[in-house]
Amino acid sequence: MTLLPSIPPLAVSLGDPAGIGPEVIAKCWDNRRELGLPPFVAIGDPCAIGAVWDGPIELVDDPRQADAAFDQALPMIQLVAAQADVPGHPSLAGAHCSLDSLELAVGLARSGSASAVVTGPVAKQQLYEIGFQHPGQTEFVAERCGVAGGNVAMMLAGPSLRTVPVTTHVAFADVPARLTAALIESRGRAALRGLQRLFGIAEPRLAVSGLNPHSGEGGQLGREEIEIIAPAIAALAAEGWRVTGPHPADTMFHARARANYDAALCMYHDQALIPIKALHFEDAVNVTLGLPIVRTAPDHGTAFDIAGQDLADARPMAAAMRMAVQCAALRAEAA
Amino acid sequence: MTLLPSIPPLAVSLGDPAGIGPEVIAKCWDNRRELGLPPFVAIGDPCAIGAVWDGPIELVDDPRQADAAFDQALPMIQLVAAQADVPGHPSLAGAHCSLDSLELAVGLARSGSASAVVTGPVAKQQLYEIGFQHPGQTEFVAERCGVAGGNVAMMLAGPSLRTVPVTTHVAFADVPARLTAALIESRGRAALRGLQRLFGIAEPRLAVSGLNPHSGEGGQLGREEIEIIAPAIAALAAEGWRVTGPHPADTMFHARARANYDAALCMYHDQALIPIKALHFEDAVNVTLGLPIVRTAPDHGTAFDIAGQDLADARPMAAAMRMAVQCAALRAEAA
Repeated sequence: MTLLPSIPPLAVSLGDPAGIGPEVIAKCWDNRRELGLPPFVAIGDPCAIGAVWDGPIELVDDPRQADAAFDQALPMIQLVAAQADVPGHPSLAGAHCSLDSLELAVGLARSGSASAVVTGPVAKQQLYEIGFQHPGQTEFVAERCGVAGGNVAMMLAGPSLRTVPVTTHVAFADVPARLTAALIESRGRAALRGLQRLFGIAEPRLAVSGLNPHSGEGGQLGREEIEIIAPAIAALAAEGWRVTGPHPADTMFHARARANYDAALCMYHDQALIPIKALHFEDAVNVTLGLPIVRTAPDHGTAFDIAGQDLADARPMAAAMRMAVQCAALRAEAA
Repeated sequence: MTLLPSIPPLAVSLGDPAGIGPEVIAKCWDNRRELGLPPFVAIGDPCAIGAVWDGPIELVDDPRQADAAFDQALPMIQLVAAQADVPGHPSLAGAHCSLDSLELAVGLARSGSASAVVTGPVAKQQLYEIGFQHPGQTEFVAERCGVAGGNVAMMLAGPSLRTVPVTTHVAFADVPARLTAALIESRGRAALRGLQRLFGIAEPRLAVSGLNPHSGEGGQLGREEIEIIAPAIAALAAEGWRVTGPHPADTMFHARARANYDAALCMYHDQALIPIKALHFEDAVNVTLGLPIVRTAPDHGTAFDIAGQDLADARPMAAAMRMAVQCAALRAEAA
């Protein structure tokens, strides 16, 4: 009984087999009804789930078989790691397995066999050691989809706030040099189009933050607002988008201010992540904008320190799954 | 019927007469019972209040007369501006008046005639034009109290979070150069002593943030955590203080994380102000730590755009008054 159009299951990559990904995915299946979750197929090494969970698993070859299986067992597409995984102890074999699982999930979504990709958390250090060349999963997925990195954007979406950082994993001191009007514009466009396509907002409103305290106080506390950010806002507005700013970042995120926009475009990582995690730590979802597929992820890492101890909170993964199916349904309707 | 020891009234400076200070102070008196406010005396030009409020004012010479008057009228110590103030239109005469009122309020607190100072918002641009040499009221009050600027700290205090920025009104690009271990230590000490003296926390816990995303990821995204912040934390810990960090700033401010500390020491303005205003926009209070007197302020500006329109929210000023009297009572108990 759902109002959503009938769409294929979600493809969920396990992430690093030694992290909390397997545990939170299994917990999601356990609580699929209470959490309001759609059918999904997990992709990875079943042993990684078996190490932390003793529920039923049904191996399938194709996501289409997952719908029928989902009521009785956790459907999985099996990828076997070259080495048994120990929760909390990442290995290079596990990193290979997490990458294969991501690659397969993306392929299934691109082919239409899966409605969207939800990615479990990976271990970046181990990925780098096996030759992974991207800053993170987002950039890898973008490349596999043939989209240039500047044209995708990471959105952190919670029930009362969505933020999009212009620069992401950049040292604080390097942010000013990375910030260009062109990058602000391309991230802004990705955010605005994403709000239309994935969230069904016909005329999205984007609020753009300043970089400096009080948005630079007219140039007294920095000139990026005048020289870089305001011109980018003007360029987006000239294209017909509803864009405001630069707004002082500290007064953008209280309830009354949040009512004035659909997403906040932020200049750097913590400017976007501090408010979303302060307000929505348990239910903020990482959504990649600008892709030909829908991809979401819970906004947490592998948490090796608590892996295998039944301590992991499955709510962020559940929120990522729910948002993935909502976005996929909106896309299916529009198509 | 109060459990607080008997202490003198608060001295409340009006701030800029053309801003929302007069309105929110008058509204506080109007709602003194519902808001749970202690007796206070307002200091400034009564005409500025008369321009936005038609309630009763009683002129007094000394805060001690305010207690008796407070039930019937808003007690005021009169300072006359050289020129009538028009709400929303700041003038140099108004700036002079706001500075005189601040100076008198501080003097009354230093002499013990007032239990604490609560300051209304001032217009910095006009203050600079009349020769004001300080970045803000905090530094002016510090100087009048004979305390070096590095030894005071600005705390933003709300019901579930307190933050203290190490650097304040500094352009984003200049923050890394301003950040030294010595400054982090002195602000940290001011924060810790302030938690003891003003908040009655015998063994305060201070959480120190990183500067870079993910606290630098072990040096990969910036080295300030390793070279500056961690050594400052070690120095404070060696003095016996309970200090942790550097913590990634984005995961410091959700409810579970906040339970682990009494204040967060943040590296820059927006890192401290974004979470406090996202969570406590209506009731965050600016408390100056490291002074021989208690000084609080509402965490908002003059808001000239809404002055004189009966739109200003008095809750932040009321919160500043309540916190001032609580801090003053703790000090009086300890003395």
